[in-house]
Amino acid sequence: MPRRLTLAAAQLGPIQRAEGREVAVGRMVRLMEIAHRRGAEVVVFPELALTTFFPRWYEEDLAAADQWFETAMPSNATAPLFEAARRYGIGFHLGYAEKTPEGRRFNTAIYVHPSGEVVLKYRKVHLPGHAEYAPTRHVQHLEKRYFEVGDLGFPVVRAPVGETQANIGMMICNDRRWPEAWRVLGLQQVELVMLGYNTPSLNMENRGFEAHHLRVFHSHLSIQAGCYQNACFAAGVAKAGVEDGHELFGHSIIVNPQGEIMAQATSWDDELIIADCDLSMCELGRGTIFNFAAHRRPEAYGRITGQVGSVAPPVWSPAHG
Amino acid sequence: MPRRLTLAAAQLGPIQRAEGREVAVGRMVRLMEIAHRRGAEVVVFPELALTTFFPRWYEEDLAAADQWFETAMPSNATAPLFEAARRYGIGFHLGYAEKTPEGRRFNTAIYVHPSGEVVLKYRKVHLPGHAEYAPTRHVQHLEKRYFEVGDLGFPVVRAPVGETQANIGMMICNDRRWPEAWRVLGLQQVELVMLGYNTPSLNMENRGFEAHHLRVFHSHLSIQAGCYQNACFAAGVAKAGVEDGHELFGHSIIVNPQGEIMAQATSWDDELIIADCDLSMCELGRGTIFNFAAHRRPEAYGRITGQVGSVAPPVWSPAHG
Repeated sequence: MPRRLTLAAAQLGPIQRAEGREVAVGRMVRLMEIAHRRGAEVVVFPELALTTFFPRWYEEDLAAADQWFETAMPSNATAPLFEAARRYGIGFHLGYAEKTPEGRRFNTAIYVHPSGEVVLKYRKVHLPGHAEYAPTRHVQHLEKRYFEVGDLGFPVVRAPVGETQANIGMMICNDRRWPEAWRVLGLQQVELVMLGYNTPSLNMENRGFEAHHLRVFHSHLSIQAGCYQNACFAAGVAKAGVEDGHELFGHSIIVNPQGEIMAQATSWDDELIIADCDLSMCELGRGTIFNFAAHRRPEAYGRITGQVGSVAPPVWSPAHG
Repeated sequence: MPRRLTLAAAQLGPIQRAEGREVAVGRMVRLMEIAHRRGAEVVVFPELALTTFFPRWYEEDLAAADQWFETAMPSNATAPLFEAARRYGIGFHLGYAEKTPEGRRFNTAIYVHPSGEVVLKYRKVHLPGHAEYAPTRHVQHLEKRYFEVGDLGFPVVRAPVGETQANIGMMICNDRRWPEAWRVLGLQQVELVMLGYNTPSLNMENRGFEAHHLRVFHSHLSIQAGCYQNACFAAGVAKAGVEDGHELFGHSIIVNPQGEIMAQATSWDDELIIADCDLSMCELGRGTIFNFAAHRRPEAYGRITGQVGSVAPPVWSPAHG
């Protein structure tokens, strides 16, 4: 029996460093209103959706970065999102920088029920980049400076979405490139992955081996493979366009359990894309080729949890070389 | 510094049930000769390359299937492959059904050095299909009947290929859809994955949810994602065309560490494709975005080795539903 969800991905154009949260929140409320008019039941916003992607800026003193972090959710600045959710009966996903009462910092995402209650919180596990100022880099990527590794694992919860229920999980940005993250969600029967990202169009560290035009391909490849191999839908939602002088590649997508792209943003600005998702599509893969109970072989996977980095293989030489 | 390998994937057209091994071996020797003329240093042949894809046929008595199995490698029938390797100075990968002296049966692949020595042996871990005759299926897929789960793990070895050295690993067919298999190889710094397959063009069990035209897409998606996420090359090599009345989709590919398809077979017959692979391309991903030591988080991956099948997530309900 079909289980239909009308899902929207709300890409955001750039948010400049000088712009306050009210600018971003105002744009997001407008996108929620459009989503409502188009019949969407859930809206997914990007990673760190309230501010510029600040890990490109170095602060010697961590406290000087506090301006980018939320200490409460909702807050005065973000309350309009929660009000719009109630007004329109829409659930929403939001990425933001979280500072806890204990002073811990995380790259965080939440899914909020139309009632305004937080259904699920996730803190980014795969932090890319580096922790110290890197003088040889053209652009800094200081996520390892500003955030701790997420301490919530990859949680999945079954929750109401629209008129049905879905098993919801989350990833943030770089997580999407790690099949381990997808699989941990898949092992909890995830049906819908909400995934925000901010990814530069140019890899200035490519050493001549990664053509810039492959950047979007790599993002889509990872999301499409993750959906196919775990029989789930995903909304991969970006910030896009030239932010603080640096271009983010956008190209937000909604993907089905066959790995097909159902909708794609093609502007570098605020843009809403929508897809009708039949969650019962997850059952085919889960019951046949990716029936984990029938086919997985964890006894051969020991290295995945048993080691962090890679190890060099043994060397073979011909007997009569 | 570039480390160049001229790599060939030798797709095979169909091998009918009535055809003896000498037919397939003769065709493979011809492909090795072509590969030599074109400057290839390594040739990769498909899974179960010596016979028809026999797991589509049910035998009540396993002993009746012995005709499909090799009890020695090389044997009189396969010796011409080893001779061609020596003659042309080409290493080759071969998939075959193996019956051990103890009577154990495996879906096996080997990589043979031009000297004729076996460098690496792999036995398929992810056996698809089922063990008993399935009366509701249009086509049987009895790999779980005819083969034991491979007992060699996913080994990688550093070995001479052409004028350089490469870290070589293997998968067989359905393994390619499992990111765990790719990652276990990646954790051993694999640079070249040799991967043979036999995959039907039609999924007769698709229940209306998997369009037939997506079958090649799924195969390529899995290989391309595996190469990108583990910074390695792969030769994914098929049998193709109508075999015993059943169509295999072919579309063999060679893929680079950026996930790009470098060469693709487009016939449903014997076809050689070649690519110049610079193995030093593996270093970019391995040293940056997929620097495992810097970025992996095994503490969040426990479910991957800790459970086989999936588990249902907890249910969330609104406080004021």
